[in-house]
Amino acid sequence: MPPASNRTEPRFDTVVVVGVGLIGGSIAAAARKRGVARRVVGVGRSRERLEAARLHGVLDEIATSGAEVGKADLVILCTPVDRIAGDARRIAAELSGSPILTDAGSVKGTICDDLRATPVTRGRFIGSHPLAGSEKNGWENSDSDLFVDRLCVVTPGEADPPADVARVEEFWKAIGMRVRRMSPAAHDEALAFTSHLPHLVAAALAGSLPEGFQPFAARGFRDTTRVAGGDPELWSAIFEANADAVASSVAIFRKSLDQLAAAVQGRDAAKVRELLLLGQSNRNSLDSGT
Amino acid sequence: MPPASNRTEPRFDTVVVVGVGLIGGSIAAAARKRGVARRVVGVGRSRERLEAARLHGVLDEIATSGAEVGKADLVILCTPVDRIAGDARRIAAELSGSPILTDAGSVKGTICDDLRATPVTRGRFIGSHPLAGSEKNGWENSDSDLFVDRLCVVTPGEADPPADVARVEEFWKAIGMRVRRMSPAAHDEALAFTSHLPHLVAAALAGSLPEGFQPFAARGFRDTTRVAGGDPELWSAIFEANADAVASSVAIFRKSLDQLAAAVQGRDAAKVRELLLLGQSNRNSLDSGT
Repeated sequence: MPPASNRTEPRFDTVVVVGVGLIGGSIAAAARKRGVARRVVGVGRSRERLEAARLHGVLDEIATSGAEVGKADLVILCTPVDRIAGDARRIAAELSGSPILTDAGSVKGTICDDLRATPVTRGRFIGSHPLAGSEKNGWENSDSDLFVDRLCVVTPGEADPPADVARVEEFWKAIGMRVRRMSPAAHDEALAFTSHLPHLVAAALAGSLPEGFQPFAARGFRDTTRVAGGDPELWSAIFEANADAVASSVAIFRKSLDQLAAAVQGRDAAKVRELLLLGQSNRNSLDSGT
Repeated sequence: MPPASNRTEPRFDTVVVVGVGLIGGSIAAAARKRGVARRVVGVGRSRERLEAARLHGVLDEIATSGAEVGKADLVILCTPVDRIAGDARRIAAELSGSPILTDAGSVKGTICDDLRATPVTRGRFIGSHPLAGSEKNGWENSDSDLFVDRLCVVTPGEADPPADVARVEEFWKAIGMRVRRMSPAAHDEALAFTSHLPHLVAAALAGSLPEGFQPFAARGFRDTTRVAGGDPELWSAIFEANADAVASSVAIFRKSLDQLAAAVQGRDAAKVRELLLLGQSNRNSLDSGT
């Protein structure tokens, strides 16, 4: 065994990931790869699925309840958005110690409201949303570098102890993320536009593809509808939890769509070019080229 | 020099590519790589740009007019859709021999109508559309395998000699494509939906991105808006040439969008799931996974 001075001490003793799918599996694998915790424990309903993930190196240990885990310092809820608050209360009651709980849900308002109204009985919850993902599912598609250079939004309440917020942020930074604090409402408004709306648009576009047109769907159609391959269960829960902000973003998009469609139908080439230039310029302003 | 029996004879003597951008450059590079022609000549306005493409192995020879080329058997127009018919007439008048002309334009009705009303004075035109592309521009981004396993739609008129149509198809097959014959109108209806509509939707989505939301645009937004990075000049010409079919496809999409948006706003989770499932199923029915 090498001398202790040659090793970086893990920043957390026990990190628990509840819900080991694509996101949970990627978080666990990212934490393991970077030695962030002494042990990364995966909690889920299927011991068989968890054991397979452990054998593939995604997890150190597995459990089907918090009681099996024992003492934990950081718990990350990676279950669907409509289950996060309930799962947080359940696992907190089962664990020992006084854990900090956070999550990876792509909606924050409903979850933070729910857990403020009925808090966890042990530890405290501080919401997070690591902005990375895929239309794929399951820990089999997990990627220990999924979060590198990505943004994580953390949405603390005003009463949350700064040290706890810092600890949550420390975890996300340790797996390579940039961190930004926002209110749950500001997060939900932005994500309605940049994530939930594109999903809705892609699903509507894919859903309206006329019979027999599949052979003519080349790269443009494939790129534009890629996210529509995502899990309808997960996404209907997201839409439900952020329905008002999504409706507002649809209204903004529809205005932009109608304007461009009217210019095309009216053969107003100058207006079409102007609107396409605006789209191109906004697209090119996104920081990464992919 | 190896004995002739050891070599595959080129299927064409001289193939001329007019407009050496991403598509023209990829066609030329694909033909060169596969030994489809004895010589692949690039025709364009800038001798300097053409010479650079030749030095990079995209072309065998370059020319700024048909007269410089001399005798040609196949000419492929790869200029913007609003210039193809005029460029076809100009190059045909300048060349010698009796060339077959085709094109790579993503709209067929207006181009084929124009060239039926005012035909080329030498040779004959048969429309094509190889379904492949990129939001990038310029021969620098050309790819000799861009067309492999992709579909090429060929849109002959009823009076076109079958041997000429077969010769055009032979070229596309020789660079790796599958070929399908359709009427220009049927092509334009299908492509309005599978290519022009996604571009319009992506441009409208990118164009409506509110100020300050860029940092929250993760993979979903990037994928869904990728094609909006395409050249506004090229795309406004495409929209103009296929305005009616595009307007019809927008109407179909808008119905699907409104239905999903109403289900989200009305918190009708069952309906949201049903519509997302339809989108997912259509998306998954596309033959390639990317």
